[in-house]
Order: sequence, then C-alpha cells, then structure tokens
Amino acid sequence: MPLITLTTDFGLTDWFVGTMKGVILGINPRATIVDITHDVQPGDIRAASFALAVSYRFFPKGTVHVAIVDPGVGSSRKAIAVQTANYFFVGPDNGVLSWALRKEKIKAMHSLGNEKYFLSPISHTFHGRDIFAPTAAHLAGGLSIRKLGPDRKHLVQLPWPEPTRHKKRIEGEVIYIDRFGNGITNIPDKLGCNSGLNSCEIYPKRRWRCPVKDFYEAVPAGMPVMIAGSAGFMEIAVNGGSAEKQLALKIGTAVVLKT
Amino acid sequence: MPLITLTTDFGLTDWFVGTMKGVILGINPRATIVDITHDVQPGDIRAASFALAVSYRFFPKGTVHVAIVDPGVGSSRKAIAVQTANYFFVGPDNGVLSWALRKEKIKAMHSLGNEKYFLSPISHTFHGRDIFAPTAAHLAGGLSIRKLGPDRKHLVQLPWPEPTRHKKRIEGEVIYIDRFGNGITNIPDKLGCNSGLNSCEIYPKRRWRCPVKDFYEAVPAGMPVMIAGSAGFMEIAVNGGSAEKQLALKIGTAVVLKT
Amino acid sequence: MPLITLTTDFGLTDWFVGTMKGVILGINPRATIVDITHDVQPGDIRAASFALAVSYRFFPKGTVHVAIVDPGVGSSRKAIAVQTANYFFVGPDNGVLSWALRKEKIKAMHSLGNEKYFLSPISHTFHGRDIFAPTAAHLAGGLSIRKLGPDRKHLVQLPWPEPTRHKKRIEGEVIYIDRFGNGITNIPDKLGCNSGLNSCEIYPKRRWRCPVKDFYEAVPAGMPVMIAGSAGFMEIAVNGGSAEKQLALKIGTAVVLKT
Repeated sequence: MPLITLTTDFGLTDWFVGTMKGVILGINPRATIVDITHDVQPGDIRAASFALAVSYRFFPKGTVHVAIVDPGVGSSRKAIAVQTANYFFVGPDNGVLSWALRKEKIKAMHSLGNEKYFLSPISHTFHGRDIFAPTAAHLAGGLSIRKLGPDRKHLVQLPWPEPTRHKKRIEGEVIYIDRFGNGITNIPDKLGCNSGLNSCEIYPKRRWRCPVKDFYEAVPAGMPVMIAGSAGFMEIAVNGGSAEKQLALKIGTAVVLKT
Repeated sequence: MPLITLTTDFGLTDWFVGTMKGVILGINPRATIVDITHDVQPGDIRAASFALAVSYRFFPKGTVHVAIVDPGVGSSRKAIAVQTANYFFVGPDNGVLSWALRKEKIKAMHSLGNEKYFLSPISHTFHGRDIFAPTAAHLAGGLSIRKLGPDRKHLVQLPWPEPTRHKKRIEGEVIYIDRFGNGITNIPDKLGCNSGLNSCEIYPKRRWRCPVKDFYEAVPAGMPVMIAGSAGFMEIAVNGGSAEKQLALKIGTAVVLKT
Repeated sequence: MPLITLTTDFGLTDWFVGTMKGVILGINPRATIVDITHDVQPGDIRAASFALAVSYRFFPKGTVHVAIVDPGVGSSRKAIAVQTANYFFVGPDNGVLSWALRKEKIKAMHSLGNEKYFLSPISHTFHGRDIFAPTAAHLAGGLSIRKLGPDRKHLVQLPWPEPTRHKKRIEGEVIYIDRFGNGITNIPDKLGCNSGLNSCEIYPKRRWRCPVKDFYEAVPAGMPVMIAGSAGFMEIAVNGGSAEKQLALKIGTAVVLKT
C-alpha cells in the first residue's frame, strides 16, 4: 500500500488539494494519501519545512513526502525528488524540504525534467497538480527516481537556527507556534533536559521567566512553563492557556535556558 | 477493511493529525481513517463528546472510534479502550467518550497500560500519536482488548443534561451550535415531535418565540423555527440564516417547548 | 478501487462530513473518498458549482462526484444522479452540478426516488448523509443509475456568465476568488492568450490597469498582473500579494482585456 503525504499552503477552501489527489489516484489507484497540513500561511516556506521535519519519520518506510510552498512557481526554481534510506521527498528546491533532510542521508537527488511523468499541458501556476502529484504517484508506484530527470548535486538549504551553548546557559529562539499557542523552540529536548538548567527566560517585549518541568500541570493553571515537547524540542507553554497570547510569543522570540 | 475514526481538538493547521495517521498506517497499512472533526475548540471535552455521540453509529460494525480532547495529558488521568457490541472506543478517561457510550452496552473496558502497544519513547504531551493511535491500529487489526492493560470498572461520566418534562411543557437547553448557526437542544426529536407541543420559547437574553415545524422553509425566510434535526434532537434554526447570530444563542441557552 | 469526491458547504468543524463517509464505507468498504472542498460559504451554490467544474476532470474515469449545497433541503427540490461518458454526478437539482455538466454529454439523468437506496429513516435536514452518500456508494459499487428512480429530462441550470467579445476587447468578470486572493475570471485562457490583447482593466471601485503576462514574477513584487491560471481561465493576481485585498476584487468585478 504505497503512502504519499502532502504538506502545502494550498488551504482547504479551494479545490487545489482535491485535484492533486485525483491526479495521484488516476496514476496510482492503490495509493493512500495523508494530509500533514495544508494550512501553512501562504508562502511560509519555514513553517512547512518545520512541519515536515517533525512528522516525516512517523510514517512507514517507503512513504513519499510531498511538500509545496512555492511562491516562485513558474520561474526558474527547480523541482526535485530526493531519496533517502527510508523515504522519498518531492517538492520545489527552495528550502521547503531542507529541514526534513537535515538528519537524513541523501542517496539520490534528481531534478524533475522528464515531461513523460507530468500532466500535459503544464500550467504556469499549479505545479502541485501538474508536476509534483504525478511525480509522487509514480515514485509510490515503484518508478526509479533516476527516470525523473538529471542528477542534482546541491539542495537549497533553509538556514537552521542552531541554539548557542554557553557554560551555564543555552540561548535559543521560538521557531514555531502551534494551534494551542505553544512556542516550540530550536533547543533539542535532550539538550534541554540533560543540561541541568531548570529555569527559562523569554524575551518577547518584556522579560518572562518560567521553570522547566515535565508536565503542563506541574505549574498552576495559567502559569508559563518550559517542557520537552512532542516534536523533539523544548517548548514554552501556559498550563491551560496560550503562551502565544499570554507571553506575546512570536517566531524568533529569544529564549534562554539557565540555572 | 478496518476503519478508524478520529475526533480531536488538534486542528488541521499543525502536523498532529497527519502524524497520528502515519503511526496508524505504519502498524496497520490496510486501515481506512476517517476524520469526524479536529476543529473542537481546544479543551472542549463536551463538544467532542457530543460530536462522537451523534456520529459513531453511522459507521460500520467493528469501527474503532478514537476521541482525544485531553487537557490533562501527562497527568494521572487514565487512557482507556472500551468494547461494545459493534464498536471500539479509545481515548482519555475524562468524559470525552461518555456521551457516545450512554446508549451502548459496555462489554469490556481496559486501561491502556501495556507499553508493548505504545510508541517508544512516549512524549508527555502527545499521547494521540504515542498511545491512542497505535492502540487504535492494533485494535483495528484484531488485537484482543484484554491485551491492552488491566480491566477497568468505572468510566468518568460527563453529566448529560436531561430535559425536564412537565405536563404541558418540556424544558431543555442548547447543547451544541453547528457551523450553520443551528442550536441543537438536549430534547430528543421523538419526545419533541410526539409531545403535541407546537411552540418554542428561547431565553438567551430576551425571550424569543417560534413555531415547531417539519422544515426550515415552513417559516418565512429570516424567521426562527424549531425542527427535528438530523442528530436526533430538536434544533433551533433560522430559515436561510443563523439562529446563533440572530437569537444570540449560546451553549446552555434555555429552551422551552410548550403549547 | 471506486472513487467518490465530495464538495459541500458542511465545513469541517462539525461531524457532517465524517458521518457521510461512515455511511459510504458501510455500504462500500472499498471506496476511496476525496474531499474537493467543504469550505464553501453556507448556501453558495455558485462557488461549489465552480469548484467542481474546474476539478472533476482530474479524477479517473468512473469517479462519482457528489456536490451538496442545499439550502432547499427538505423542500420540493429534486435530488438527482447524472451519468456522462466518464463520470457520475450526484446532488440536489439546484444548479450545483450544472457548471460541471456544461462540457459533459449527459448519457442518463435520474431523480433519486428509490428509498431502497436511502438510509432509513430520512432526516429533513441532512440528505447528504441519508440520501446522497448512500446513492454515491451504490453507484461507485456498480449499481445501474436507472435503479435509482425515474428518468429526468431537465436539469436546473445556473446561468454561466459568458464573456463578451468585441473587436479589440473582451469583457468579463471575476467569478471566483481563491485563498491566495487571485481573482479567477470567466475569460477562458485560450481566448485570453490567443487574443493578442495584452492589457487588462479592472473596475472594482476605481479603475486598475495591469499587463497580461505568463508568470506572476513577470511583474515586480506587489504589482498586479493578468495570467492564464490553472483552472482554465484568465486570472487577476498580484505578484507576492493578494489581488483581492489590494484591488478590492469582488465576485462580479468587471474585467476588460484590451490592447
């Protein structure tokens, strides 16, 4: 049962995602398609790259992951497919795949150039339907990635904001805010939990301070707390509330883990 | 074809629901997964419990229903699986399953304690992915519910607001408001329709009165009406409009069916 | 693998779409169900009709397309099923299917009258679950359309706003605005691209003018442009922005293609 995931900024209000699924199932009727998200803000390559990076490994071996946030559609940016030990990744070469590929060993990378595997005609504005969907369907059906187009050596990388380790502090930042208003930081949970540091300062406009705990409910309701979140990173949360609203968190808000 | 439904407050903006599906399909590649809703307001156990209660019986025998609104995740609340004559139910034991189980005869109920059927490691904040998804996948694959963990005798019940029957009136309340702005009451349609009562009073701030009819269009456009809705309960609607907006309905708004 | 698509105004916040899927899978466990959209504004028959019209042909032969925007549910409006060379269409006969059927040759059209293929009892307010879902499941399973009910000769047509061709200008209008704020017009891309006309005027409140180009990025960021969109029509867009917001586009905004 070939599995294909979709991560896009196409939204669910129009027919874009539905038609991609029609194209996939027309080529590969046995495919199972899973939406990771389509509610990425239009053009937010970082958010899509992060969503894919923290979810792709929960899918079975052989899954084809498609990610499309593509403000440069129709321009000279390349379309690519990447093969790693366990997965395929398909999308525009604009960084949207790069955070997922940070921890993967790339076995093959090809530009999508073979029009045999595209819809015809190809629109200028919807390569999700005309190029990426059919490519994913063919890969999920067992097509060799080499058939898709010429070999490619370099991948456009989205810079990953590494946290800074000092002797008694780790400096990081908020890189994603989820629907519950939790601020996911770039500090890996293992680094955060094994550091012996047990206090956190947050600098949106003014300074907030909160403890590092194991559970939301380890602090009173309405109070902020830093915990090891489910995505593999330390998170800023408010027990029973929204850290985003209460602490005015934004993407890029500075976070310092200290004693 | 094993069937699993999901009812959560995880939203569709992040990757939470997608990763649960990846976990399920990794364990049980033949599973078909249906979303009931993921747009329950964060923490609204009642709304999720109601959504499941009015939809679960439209699924085929053997379906595994998963409901997760879980503000106490990581704390001491139990995770459970319940077997009835036709279905399985999986979720936290905080009431979210209880309205669906009101009319079901429970054949078996077990705490989820056997880590063999969990992902490893288990996060503190996302048991949907790490515990409930794999449990559902195993149940849908035929695993005996007894393997999941110790027998459990009691279920946390969400109080069900029974309507009050008087001689010539039935007093109820709005328990759910749908996307069309219809106010679904706790008055069963059979009780309402067979009562001989044909008028309805609604008390949000001021008093509104409307007739009881068979169809929206039995009243002029823009006028309120009480009808027997599709969920098995009497509903307050406005023909061609939103009763929620026009009558200022809220959850808990008093409704009186009278002559 | 029988395929069924759904296009509705039911939203994803309530359980409506989920229960339709439960009904379909109870009748036809092998069905694959694809959502085209459920976020049509309540009662907006035109938007649903357009969404289906520009997506149905991307699905494989034999697909059953269900479209339900049904403000007259429970009244005297008919429910119908239509067979064309490659597809089935199911929905209320209120125009919601008519734009998709503009370019299809109808082979058979039947009213849904045979209660054997409905759920029982039938609610007055949710024919999506009780009539259209089971009908689609039976058609996808190979049931002859003639079994569904009496032959029907006429289809309720939603008027299609044809653009007006003059010697050196084509007058059209905005018929759909997508999530990116692009204004899709009723001017077919072939007509627009082969006309030799290379300038566009838009009349929301004041007059805007923009060039006709091949790509968004053929104009500077923030500037409006008309391009051939992916739905088969000329579109008004803003490179990197929202034409809807920036130009105050609305459904019906006049658009003139000229030299």
